[in-house]
Amino acid sequence: MANPTAALLVIGDEILSGRTRDANMYHLAGRLTDVGIDLKEVRVISDDGGEIQSAVNALRHKYQHVFTSGGIGPTHDDITADNVAAAFGIGIDVREDAMEVLATNYPEGRAAINEARMRMARIPDGARLIDNPVSKAPGFSVENVHVMAGVPKIFEAMLDALLPELAAGVPLVSQTVRVDLPEGDVAGPLAEVAQAFGDLSIGSYPFNTPQGLGSNVVLRGTEAARVAEASARVRDAFGIE
Amino acid sequence: MANPTAALLVIGDEILSGRTRDANMYHLAGRLTDVGIDLKEVRVISDDGGEIQSAVNALRHKYQHVFTSGGIGPTHDDITADNVAAAFGIGIDVREDAMEVLATNYPEGRAAINEARMRMARIPDGARLIDNPVSKAPGFSVENVHVMAGVPKIFEAMLDALLPELAAGVPLVSQTVRVDLPEGDVAGPLAEVAQAFGDLSIGSYPFNTPQGLGSNVVLRGTEAARVAEASARVRDAFGIE
Repeated sequence: MANPTAALLVIGDEILSGRTRDANMYHLAGRLTDVGIDLKEVRVISDDGGEIQSAVNALRHKYQHVFTSGGIGPTHDDITADNVAAAFGIGIDVREDAMEVLATNYPEGRAAINEARMRMARIPDGARLIDNPVSKAPGFSVENVHVMAGVPKIFEAMLDALLPELAAGVPLVSQTVRVDLPEGDVAGPLAEVAQAFGDLSIGSYPFNTPQGLGSNVVLRGTEAARVAEASARVRDAFGIE
Repeated sequence: MANPTAALLVIGDEILSGRTRDANMYHLAGRLTDVGIDLKEVRVISDDGGEIQSAVNALRHKYQHVFTSGGIGPTHDDITADNVAAAFGIGIDVREDAMEVLATNYPEGRAAINEARMRMARIPDGARLIDNPVSKAPGFSVENVHVMAGVPKIFEAMLDALLPELAAGVPLVSQTVRVDLPEGDVAGPLAEVAQAFGDLSIGSYPFNTPQGLGSNVVLRGTEAARVAEASARVRDAFGIE
């Protein structure tokens, strides 16, 4: 059976303007690979309601999971929750369970929750809350769309809370063969191996050393024996012990 | 007049598997902001012909420029050029001008260009070559789609060669006001400023210090006087000198 598929939707003007360097894509990619969920696409879009809705709808029908990052804080530019609800055509309002969780973040409890903070308790109807051990304000899942914070520390904590609930796949086994030849000399023999092992994903990534150009050949698949067999074939092709 | 818009399409399994951390998005975002081209969307997709074609076609009709990154080397998984040509419905073949440029990368000249390397001289009909001072193998532009290498050093060099040829816009002026209050206390007054300055983009980004939570308020726009006026309003609202 094929692994579950997933997409990440990063929402935030600050990434597109170059002000902030996104860190969540790299983190999510590694975590999903570890549990056997295949990340197939990432999109980064601005804080624009129409864009959020159309991206959520495009991705949620195409992949088994959609993770979003960003736009769920208390300020006027935090519009992700409302637009995820709109994408699904469902209602959204301040929810009692979210208020309760949120209040635990402040010594004064509910008294600290002004109108702005109350925005962080706006949850689409029927959504499941995602735990936020860092700053309490919860994320949430609507069907297969998992809405999380953009701040990396909080995104990572929410992902820790969420991942065990998702059906995992078969983690990919990966082997890397280092070939001390430029890609132009690796390509021919490698193409033959790739053709013989169509069930594997075989990629080549160039590197530079003071001794010259080299290529890392990365072989990935769900069966360790097949990956080992293909790696041996690559080593043979280039006379590597 | 509005600034030109742009999208980036990153092509590569190695990014989605978490093996490689993308660096081109952050670099491009900063460079485009400097010249007044608005980066509106980024997509990261796998080395899959159908996905490349549909993403190229979706983005090239929506934005004034599309930059692509990755998949133009000599190995079997380098399929970007062929699929960009297919997206436009135009032919692609080894081109004499590209061969000539490529040959300058090898002491043996054309003799070094085996079948695999010849792939790097496959250029869609009518495309303009993009100079690659690092390793010669050229990028190319078809209409508004600019196809560049994934290796950051080469991507950056190609962008240096390409950017002066693109019509620039009005660079955004940006000011940041640091407010030593958590976002939940900044949000209310800030929303009022944002409403009064609808022509600006005003965002809030939380930060953490040993003294507690704070918020960086970032104000951006094309007119320096408006940005300064809005910044003054934010400082007033929070009693900042």
